[in-house]
Amino acid sequence: MTGKLSVAFVAYDGMTLLDLVGPYEILTLWPDISASVVAEHPGPVVPDSRAMPILAQASFAETLAPDIIVVPGGPTAEEASRQRALHRWLAQVAPRATCVFSVCTGAFHLAEAGLLRGRRATTHWAMLDQLERFGAQARVARWVDDGAILTAAGVSAGLDAALYLTSRMQGDALAKAIQLMIEYDPAPPFNAGSTISAGEDVVGTVGPLLAPAMARRRT
Amino acid sequence: MTGKLSVAFVAYDGMTLLDLVGPYEILTLWPDISASVVAEHPGPVVPDSRAMPILAQASFAETLAPDIIVVPGGPTAEEASRQRALHRWLAQVAPRATCVFSVCTGAFHLAEAGLLRGRRATTHWAMLDQLERFGAQARVARWVDDGAILTAAGVSAGLDAALYLTSRMQGDALAKAIQLMIEYDPAPPFNAGSTISAGEDVVGTVGPLLAPAMARRRT
Repeated sequence: MTGKLSVAFVAYDGMTLLDLVGPYEILTLWPDISASVVAEHPGPVVPDSRAMPILAQASFAETLAPDIIVVPGGPTAEEASRQRALHRWLAQVAPRATCVFSVCTGAFHLAEAGLLRGRRATTHWAMLDQLERFGAQARVARWVDDGAILTAAGVSAGLDAALYLTSRMQGDALAKAIQLMIEYDPAPPFNAGSTISAGEDVVGTVGPLLAPAMARRRT
Repeated sequence: MTGKLSVAFVAYDGMTLLDLVGPYEILTLWPDISASVVAEHPGPVVPDSRAMPILAQASFAETLAPDIIVVPGGPTAEEASRQRALHRWLAQVAPRATCVFSVCTGAFHLAEAGLLRGRRATTHWAMLDQLERFGAQARVARWVDDGAILTAAGVSAGLDAALYLTSRMQGDALAKAIQLMIEYDPAPPFNAGSTISAGEDVVGTVGPLLAPAMARRRT
């Protein structure tokens, strides 16, 4: 026992990098943590966006008792179902963890591991209705704290949920200091971050306008 | 000529990962880009936070004419001055680039390369006053667009500036679609993201509360 909180940042091919790096940047500013990137096998992991591989240092098998587990999402709930090694590991280590924290469709990994049955949870807006088939109580929210399970909405929501987790586990003072350190004073040039604020017109453009990037991610 | 926009995401040991990954997640959703992580040498690059190395695919020497160059910051302006290879390369490729885009103290790399003389620019709040000694006109702003030079404030500001750059180069419709895709509807649990909203009390806690994490980064 070192007294340090151990944080496992889960990585797998096809994940969305910002899902992981938002919480990573915040949690690695905690005073006494031991952080590692954990994957089925150590070595390069290629995100959905392809061009920026990260290096996993530890395997699931050798990561026995992380206190906090951050699980990023990938493109779809269907693809999430393929990460069997991740789901077996999550089912094994979650009972002793203080917090299993998913971002975006990372919630589907928790669901596949059986961790969301009867739990309140959220995920990316486009896939929220699919959470219910795993027995979860889907919620429209920036993040949902259900005790040992913390789920955040799409991609960038990991920043807000990580600051919230900071306040819960380390106190408001540290959360505020970190927010100021990363100058998180958001000022997006548009008000299009939710389906409600964006409106139906913008919702309808997401598929067609992002189709080229999504096609690149699949090939 | 492929017709694709080439985007170079600069990496170096000691950089802040979110500075790079915020813009990366947004720009890689553009329809027709070629993205690569560029460093002095290809291979692993270790960020300030240590636990999540990324893999650079290309060297500065072989990256001759990127259209967009994203330059992340690191801990201090002083440390920025050590990246001589980066500064030589920036000075060489910037004149033909459509946009050189810094996040946080990445602005000091642009300054060291002589790119900020007479330019309006911004950087992390704690180091903004140091920009003037490079002949820049320092501005308190989320981002500053000075034509071929785009500078963002601290760390998370790269998200806002990247959406702005999307609107400038690709149109508002794509910027809004990407904002919705990454569900960037920010809702930090505190209002402590700027020195003004945080107040003097919080400003005074940043040094002491983050000292353990900063010490880890130095060792």
